[in-house]
Amino acid sequence: MSSLFGQASLFLLLSTFLSFFNAEAKIHHLKWEIKYEYKSPDCFRKLAITINGLTPGPMITATQGDTLVVDVTNTLLTENAAIHWHGIRQIGTPWSDGTEGVTQCPIMPGDTFTYRFVVDRAGTYMYHAHYGMQRSAGLHGLIRVLVPPGTVEPFKYDDELHLVLNDWWHKSTYEQTAGLSSPNFEWVGEPQSLLINGRGKFNCSLAGGGDSCNLANSECSPASLTVVQGRTYRLRIASVASLSAFNLEIEAHNMTIVEVDGYYVKPVVVKNLNIYSGETYSVILKADEDKSRNYWVALNVVSRKPNTPTGTAILNYYPNHPLKPPPTATPIGPPWNDTLYRFNQSKSIVSHPNFIEAPPPTSNRLIILLNTFLTSPLSPTPTLSRHHHPHPTAWALNNISFTLPTTPYLIAMKSQMQHVFSQKPAPETYDYKNYNIHVVSSNPNTVSSNSVYRLEFGSTVDVILQNANTLSANNSETHPWHLHGHDFWVLGYGMGKFDPEVDSKKYNLFDPIQRNTVPLHPYGWTALRFRADNPGVWAFHCHIEAHFFMGMGVVFEEGVEKVGELPSSIMGCGESKHLRRRA
Amino acid sequence: MSSLFGQASLFLLLSTFLSFFNAEAKIHHLKWEIKYEYKSPDCFRKLAITINGLTPGPMITATQGDTLVVDVTNTLLTENAAIHWHGIRQIGTPWSDGTEGVTQCPIMPGDTFTYRFVVDRAGTYMYHAHYGMQRSAGLHGLIRVLVPPGTVEPFKYDDELHLVLNDWWHKSTYEQTAGLSSPNFEWVGEPQSLLINGRGKFNCSLAGGGDSCNLANSECSPASLTVVQGRTYRLRIASVASLSAFNLEIEAHNMTIVEVDGYYVKPVVVKNLNIYSGETYSVILKADEDKSRNYWVALNVVSRKPNTPTGTAILNYYPNHPLKPPPTATPIGPPWNDTLYRFNQSKSIVSHPNFIEAPPPTSNRLIILLNTFLTSPLSPTPTLSRHHHPHPTAWALNNISFTLPTTPYLIAMKSQMQHVFSQKPAPETYDYKNYNIHVVSSNPNTVSSNSVYRLEFGSTVDVILQNANTLSANNSETHPWHLHGHDFWVLGYGMGKFDPEVDSKKYNLFDPIQRNTVPLHPYGWTALRFRADNPGVWAFHCHIEAHFFMGMGVVFEEGVEKVGELPSSIMGCGESKHLRRRA
Repeated sequence: MSSLFGQASLFLLLSTFLSFFNAEAKIHHLKWEIKYEYKSPDCFRKLAITINGLTPGPMITATQGDTLVVDVTNTLLTENAAIHWHGIRQIGTPWSDGTEGVTQCPIMPGDTFTYRFVVDRAGTYMYHAHYGMQRSAGLHGLIRVLVPPGTVEPFKYDDELHLVLNDWWHKSTYEQTAGLSSPNFEWVGEPQSLLINGRGKFNCSLAGGGDSCNLANSECSPASLTVVQGRTYRLRIASVASLSAFNLEIEAHNMTIVEVDGYYVKPVVVKNLNIYSGETYSVILKADEDKSRNYWVALNVVSRKPNTPTGTAILNYYPNHPLKPPPTATPIGPPWNDTLYRFNQSKSIVSHPNFIEAPPPTSNRLIILLNTFLTSPLSPTPTLSRHHHPHPTAWALNNISFTLPTTPYLIAMKSQMQHVFSQKPAPETYDYKNYNIHVVSSNPNTVSSNSVYRLEFGSTVDVILQNANTLSANNSETHPWHLHGHDFWVLGYGMGKFDPEVDSKKYNLFDPIQRNTVPLHPYGWTALRFRADNPGVWAFHCHIEAHFFMGMGVVFEEGVEKVGELPSSIMGCGESKHLRRRA
Repeated sequence: MSSLFGQASLFLLLSTFLSFFNAEAKIHHLKWEIKYEYKSPDCFRKLAITINGLTPGPMITATQGDTLVVDVTNTLLTENAAIHWHGIRQIGTPWSDGTEGVTQCPIMPGDTFTYRFVVDRAGTYMYHAHYGMQRSAGLHGLIRVLVPPGTVEPFKYDDELHLVLNDWWHKSTYEQTAGLSSPNFEWVGEPQSLLINGRGKFNCSLAGGGDSCNLANSECSPASLTVVQGRTYRLRIASVASLSAFNLEIEAHNMTIVEVDGYYVKPVVVKNLNIYSGETYSVILKADEDKSRNYWVALNVVSRKPNTPTGTAILNYYPNHPLKPPPTATPIGPPWNDTLYRFNQSKSIVSHPNFIEAPPPTSNRLIILLNTFLTSPLSPTPTLSRHHHPHPTAWALNNISFTLPTTPYLIAMKSQMQHVFSQKPAPETYDYKNYNIHVVSSNPNTVSSNSVYRLEFGSTVDVILQNANTLSANNSETHPWHLHGHDFWVLGYGMGKFDPEVDSKKYNLFDPIQRNTVPLHPYGWTALRFRADNPGVWAFHCHIEAHFFMGMGVVFEEGVEKVGELPSSIMGCGESKHLRRRA
């Protein structure tokens, strides 16, 4: 793209293009103020980051093709911020992705930053902080993008309900991050509570007295979803969890999975839904049970040994009182360590037959990413990096533990700042012929780096996520990987070590689902394919907040030369501090 | 100063000039890294902001005329920072004053900011954070500036000791500030502990169990100052307190006050020393007691009704064990509410007769500042301000509650940004003929503003600080006021309401002490005089962290047109985000 053809004109063109499909495309202008406030989401009073006083923040509703303009004013006292629009590909607006260190400098206290982008695809998405571990402090919410009027979806319902799922700690994120980066390494531990629509219930007798925990606080009365017998509901579900993999069950009701991350699914009926951080679902629920009572909505931790009580909300059959407790015990979900159950549910999700968009039959590049955990001291990164002392305990991909540069990649690349990040290409693979993923390995050659993968624009890329043993014997964890700026096809899941010769032949190239977040199961592999066709710089990372903080991510660049002139509002940190304002 | 005569040349000239008095002037290059770490200064484990792992930070020792170059690397995760060199006038380097919002943008995470300035006057000073309430989180330390070799001081001693005095809370500064700015207003309350050289002792039985409080932790063993019988010591003392006024007593030993804030005092012998936040002292202590035992160093809260145990350290007579407890009870200090005692001690401090620098006999301008507290909702500030919703509970000067602009004043003024702060002059006085300082007044006309006082360069300015009743009947508080960029003469203290006609005739124009911080006593007034001869923009504010946060400050500008070109390193926030880098 020539420099004559700048950001504004590209944006206009895109808006016009999308408006073609949505004759009534609107601009939604939102004004958000973020700050710290005391909240008691699980009856325990602590600081949370709120948007306009709310956590979860306001739900955004727009129609495909609409433009969102969100003025985010940072009224935190000393802390910066950034907000990522998770699942929105930011086609033509890579500077609005909200990924601090990748696509923008953080928003300083007192400043107002304007995110402006088109929601180009109907579906269920989310937004959340993408700076430090601020998402864990409560900065997140749901985005609903509706189909244009007259569009027929492959399922019917009478009304919509929504569920934002989260895990919640009583320690501040400062305490969590100080523990994670201390030489002694203090893990964040299991959450104190699970929240549904920002509401949970802590056992206040464990809170050590005082008035910091109050079960009578209305802020922690359970969420209640009112239904009318005989009607059918679309439940939009998002997990903004910091750590936990969840199993969601609605007592006595099956759910039919119909949408993931904005794509229609060949309907799958489940008794309960495994949902990983960063994933969104729509399920169809029919209110066909006894209307004289209410039912439990139950949220349980899976994949990690649970040490948190079941999170509960109420499915309220009208005209019962919304908070009338169901007379039954809360569902306990499947065994937490039934990996095969979750693996099979993941595999069951494929594209709806009427909406298949087949992937390219072959790819131009194969990147295999071995996921490992280590406690060895890391070599310092050779170039400017956020962490001057890399974490002594870290996650790594192919022996690279990721650190963010002080100057965001997008700005650095557009401004030809070669010294800002490592110019050494990130490694394409690991020694898969010899590496044993089933044993404890210290991976002593791991280094800390901010190197990136530069992708040929328009090429097709396969990524294999390969899981392995952690530093505990017989332990491998679940990692939900999220890709910015793209949806990918999920070509396959496997148990054990991926063999390029054998396993690639079993890919589902017929009706794979597309999505932006996918689980990597314990000791397993997950194969993805995407087209590198969105000019920009894009993070791809484990969506567990502490794992990304400890280096579990990579960055892809493609077609950055095609990105128009960057808005000066994303600059101001690191080497971008004194770049000239665009005329 | 012409633009040809820029920062670097001015700095060189100044260095040369000062070197004339100190033939061996040195450059001290310090590299500091600040971050959050778990610390147990009073046995209770919580996060503190450390410098190179320490709180208090490293003590700086330099000689008059030396240059300090401090590279401050911010390794906080999401939080900015700034460090003020309290008592250093920054002659020729106003951009190194470290006052966020006034003289610089804060240092962003990952960035290194270099402070470079000359310590032009021997004496005892301090440094501390000047951003949000980060000083309360532990970011502070002592600066000793020694006289050049061969210089005779008006007192003798064999050795030096030092005492950094502080108060300490178990709540984080985030929790404190969220409480202060919440509509319900939660006051920070009295400190949990008093710290001497970063060490105190909390009663762990009050900590609610768990392993967060451990009396056996060596981090909280008391500070011990070892002396040899018969020798004489100079104790350098600094209070970095967030809130408390202190009384310091060394059991069985008198102290002779010989220096305050870098000026020699006509010696005053005291049994105990009242010291307010932001003040520094040197006292002479003779080790003339029984050498078979140790003695208590006792720190008590005065002026506010104490709810914190006495802070203790040990005066250790060699060769007793440094931590051998004295056999006696700890000194309890004077009655906390004996205002007259403190008032008289303040008045007793005048210049050493051999070092009198007489003030100008008259002044060009009189500014009277009425100090009031209020809870009325404030009108929003008319110009860009940090706090979009001004604090519902605030302190004010002449009915102006101060807010910082998003663009630092120094940058805004040099760049002719008129819109960045209110151009309406801040008020010179209040209605002193009719205002009753002894009754509760709601001061309903108070507004929030970032207006400033613009002083004629070279003029002499008198400031009268006038105290008043708070919102509680029969209550008026002590406020230690600190002026940046200058030392002022303390012309007088009074009880009751200052009468310009009468009280100005009683000023001490003969031997007033000069200092940078001075108490305003309950229901009293304090009269200051200074020369507006240091080009720059300078904060003048109550040194109580929460009070400044709630608006208790003003800003003076003088000769900003004489300031050389600003270093680009201080820019990057608000409207200074895209100013061009200096060529």
